[in-house]
Amino acid sequence: MSVLPHHLVATSLSSSTSNFFAQNSFDVVRTQVVSAPFRKMGVCKCVATSPTEQTAYKTQVSRNGNIAKLQAGYLFPEIGRRKAAHMLKHPDAQVISLGIGDTTEPIPEVITSAMAKRALALSTVEGYSGYGAEQGEKQLRARLASTFYGNLGIEEDDIFVSDGAKSDISRLQVCVLFGSNVTMAVQDPSYPAYVDSSVIMGQTGQFQKDVEKFGKIEYMKCTPENDFFPDLSKVSRTDIIFFCSPNNPTGSAASREQLIQLVKFAKDNGSIIIYDSAYAMYVSGDTPKSIFEIPGAKEVAIETASFSKYAGFTGVRLGWTVVPKELKYSDGFPVAKDFNRIVCTGFNGASNIAQAGGLACLSPEGLEIIVDTFTSLGFKVYGGKHAPYVWVHFPGQSSWDVFSEILEKTHVVTTPGSGFGPAGEGFVRVSAFGHRDNVLEACRRFKELYK
Amino acid sequence: MSVLPHHLVATSLSSSTSNFFAQNSFDVVRTQVVSAPFRKMGVCKCVATSPTEQTAYKTQVSRNGNIAKLQAGYLFPEIGRRKAAHMLKHPDAQVISLGIGDTTEPIPEVITSAMAKRALALSTVEGYSGYGAEQGEKQLRARLASTFYGNLGIEEDDIFVSDGAKSDISRLQVCVLFGSNVTMAVQDPSYPAYVDSSVIMGQTGQFQKDVEKFGKIEYMKCTPENDFFPDLSKVSRTDIIFFCSPNNPTGSAASREQLIQLVKFAKDNGSIIIYDSAYAMYVSGDTPKSIFEIPGAKEVAIETASFSKYAGFTGVRLGWTVVPKELKYSDGFPVAKDFNRIVCTGFNGASNIAQAGGLACLSPEGLEIIVDTFTSLGFKVYGGKHAPYVWVHFPGQSSWDVFSEILEKTHVVTTPGSGFGPAGEGFVRVSAFGHRDNVLEACRRFKELYK
Repeated sequence: MSVLPHHLVATSLSSSTSNFFAQNSFDVVRTQVVSAPFRKMGVCKCVATSPTEQTAYKTQVSRNGNIAKLQAGYLFPEIGRRKAAHMLKHPDAQVISLGIGDTTEPIPEVITSAMAKRALALSTVEGYSGYGAEQGEKQLRARLASTFYGNLGIEEDDIFVSDGAKSDISRLQVCVLFGSNVTMAVQDPSYPAYVDSSVIMGQTGQFQKDVEKFGKIEYMKCTPENDFFPDLSKVSRTDIIFFCSPNNPTGSAASREQLIQLVKFAKDNGSIIIYDSAYAMYVSGDTPKSIFEIPGAKEVAIETASFSKYAGFTGVRLGWTVVPKELKYSDGFPVAKDFNRIVCTGFNGASNIAQAGGLACLSPEGLEIIVDTFTSLGFKVYGGKHAPYVWVHFPGQSSWDVFSEILEKTHVVTTPGSGFGPAGEGFVRVSAFGHRDNVLEACRRFKELYK
Repeated sequence: MSVLPHHLVATSLSSSTSNFFAQNSFDVVRTQVVSAPFRKMGVCKCVATSPTEQTAYKTQVSRNGNIAKLQAGYLFPEIGRRKAAHMLKHPDAQVISLGIGDTTEPIPEVITSAMAKRALALSTVEGYSGYGAEQGEKQLRARLASTFYGNLGIEEDDIFVSDGAKSDISRLQVCVLFGSNVTMAVQDPSYPAYVDSSVIMGQTGQFQKDVEKFGKIEYMKCTPENDFFPDLSKVSRTDIIFFCSPNNPTGSAASREQLIQLVKFAKDNGSIIIYDSAYAMYVSGDTPKSIFEIPGAKEVAIETASFSKYAGFTGVRLGWTVVPKELKYSDGFPVAKDFNRIVCTGFNGASNIAQAGGLACLSPEGLEIIVDTFTSLGFKVYGGKHAPYVWVHFPGQSSWDVFSEILEKTHVVTTPGSGFGPAGEGFVRVSAFGHRDNVLEACRRFKELYK
C-alpha cells in the first residue's frame, strides 16, 4: 500500500525509511504501546518580539550579546503562528499536527506503580529520602550500566542520571564546550539545541543569512546523496562533533561501518564526539544502539540517552549521560571529573520518583514489556535501520512552500526541513506519532491531495 | 535552659538566634512535621584528585580553564574525609552529623497522594501527558502567583517552575551573568553555589589564597558587628548582587528596612539583585518573605524559591524563579525574555509528577497543613527573624580547629564557617535538623564538653 504519491520521495539512510514509509504507511508505526516521540526542540515557544510593558526604569546591566544572536522567529514558534492563522481562516477544519512530535501513549503500569509507590513512601519515616546523589541513585546507575552497556566496559560510575538529555546537552556545553577557542561540528540537518546552546555560550559567530549558518560552526552535510552520513574527508577538524543517530529529523541511523569511520575520524583529530542516542530503541539488527559498541569510542565519545522515547517519559523527565573515564582532555585530565563538577554545582539530581520509574523500566518485568513493545513495532522487518519519523524530499521546492501547501490543502501540520539546517531545504519532516486515528486520517488526506 | 556554655556566643541578626538557641535548645526546632533542611551545597562530593586510570590516548581538546580555578579540597568533601577518619579512629562512637543538613521528616500524605495519583494516571489514555511547558504547568504557575505574590503584582507568566533553585541559579548565570564584563557581589559568608557557578562561567579571577577570595568578586562582609547586613556604603557597584535571606549559613533574615536599603542601592547602581528566598518559610512577623514586598523591587530583582524546605521536596525536586517583566537590561530588553529562552533551550520542564505535588502543597488542605507545621515550630515566639540553623562564634579560634575539637570530643559533625567565605572564619554552623533524638543527644554531649 502506498500512501504518499510518487513525487514525494522519501529518503533515508539505506533507504530504509522509504521502504518503511511506502510499504507500511503509518499504521505499523502506530501499534506501539509505549509511545516514542520526537524530542521537543530546543527552541523557545513563547518569545514575544515586542516589549509590551514599558516602564521607565532600566538597569545598567548589559544584555548577554550571545543570546541576541539566536534567531528570533525560530522554527516551532513560526509553525505555531502559521497553524494558528490557518485555524483562524478555517475555523471548522480538523487540523492534525504531525509537526512537533510528543509521546501520546500511556506508560505501562509496572512503571507508574513503582513511581506511585515511591511517592507514597515519602510520607513514611522509613520511605522518606531527602537529597539524593547529584549523579543519580546507585542502583539505577548500576542497572543502566548492566542493561545497556553490559559487555562494553562502561561502569556504574561512568553514568550520570539526569532530568533529561536536553539539560545534559546544556551542561555539556558548559563543561566541555565552554572556552574561548573551542570549535564544534553538527550534522546538517540536526536537532537545533546543539547549535542554539553553542550560540548562547558564545562559541559561534553571527548568523549568516546568505548561507543560513552561524559562523564558526562546521556543518556536516547529510543528504540522500551521501546516504545521510557526512563525507568526513571534507569535514574540517573541530574539538567537538555532535552526532545524533538515529538522526532527528532525517530518521537515518548510522551503520556500524560508518560509526567506525566516525570514531577513527575523531581519534585522528583528537576530537570529542557527543553522541545523542535518544532514538536508539528504534534500531535493531547489527546497527549499533550505542557509540560504545565501537572499539576505541570510550577514548573519544560521550553519549547522552533518555527514557523519553524508551518509556514515554517526556513529562516525567529522566535521562542519562555516559562519560567514560578513558576520555581525557589534551592535558590528560579526565573529562568525567569536570562533568561531575558541573553536575554537582548546577544540579541536584533527578526526581527520586522519576528514578524509581527508571528502575522499574529496567526490572525484568519492565524490560520485557518494553522489548515486546518495540518488537511489535515491526521495525525489524525493514532492517531496523530507521527511526519513527519520515524525511520527505520535494526536490526544487522550498520547505516552507511545501509546508504551506500541505497545511492549506489537507489541514495537516508538518515541519519544514530547512528549520534543521540549510541541508534540510526542500524536505519536510512528517512525524509518525500522534494518535493512530489521526495519523490514518492524515494519510487519507495526503492521498487525496497527491492522487 | 542553656545548652551551650557561655563561651559559645551564638550570634545572629537582631540576636534572635542567640535567644532562640539559648532558651530553647534544639527541641523546639525539631517539632516540625515537614522538615526543612539546609540546601545541599553546590560543591562536588566526589572529585578524586589523582587520575587513577591512565590510558595512553588523550584528545586534543583543552580543558575549560575556569573549572580548574575551583578549589579542589572543598568544604563538604573535606568534612566527609575528616568524619570518615574519625569513625575509623573511633569505630564504636555514635557519630551525629549536624553538618550538612537534609530533610528527614516525611511529606504530608495529601501531597504524596497527589503525586501517586498523577503517576498512576500516566498509565491511562486520559491521564497521560508528554512534554509539558518548559516554564511549568499553567495551573501551578497561577497558584504560585496567587499564594505567594497575591497582592505584589507578580503574575503567572512571571513565574518559571523548575527542578530546584540550584538548577535555576546555574541557568541565571548563563542568562544574566554570562558575558565578558559582568561583575557580581555576594554576601560573605554565603551559599557557595553563587561563587562556584560564577567561577565556572569565567566571571572571576583566580582564587587568591592570602585573602581566601576569588578575584573580581565583591565580598559583602556580614558579621555580628554589622548585624549581618552589609554596610552598603562600602560596597562597590556590581552588575549582579546575590542576596540570600534568611541567609545560609548565618541564619540571619534581613528586615524590611534593610531590604528597602538594598533595593535602593541596586536601583541607584542599576544592579540586578538575585534574591534567594529558599528559607522564606522560616520567617514570620513583618520580616519580608519575598523581595517583591519592597516597592520598586520588580525593576531590580529576580527571586529564586523552592519547595525543598517548604514541603521536604529536596529529593522530589521542585522550585521556581520569579523574573518580573519590569526588569530590563540597559538597552530596555526584558530579562525575562532571555531567561525564558535559556529555560527553553536547556531545560524541558520539571517532572509532571513533582508538579502535581507542588499543586497539592498549594491546595487549601495542603496549605493548612504546611502553615500549621511552621506555626508549630514556635519561631514567632522569638520575633520570627531567624532560620533553622545556628551560627556560633568562637572568637579568635579557627573554624577547622573548633570543628575538630567538637568532633574529637563529642563525635558530633558540624560545619566550619570559613567554608562559606572569609568572614565565616571563627564560626561553626550547627544544623538544627536531623532526627529529634540525635539533636537532643548532641546537646547533651555539648553540655558535657563545655560544662
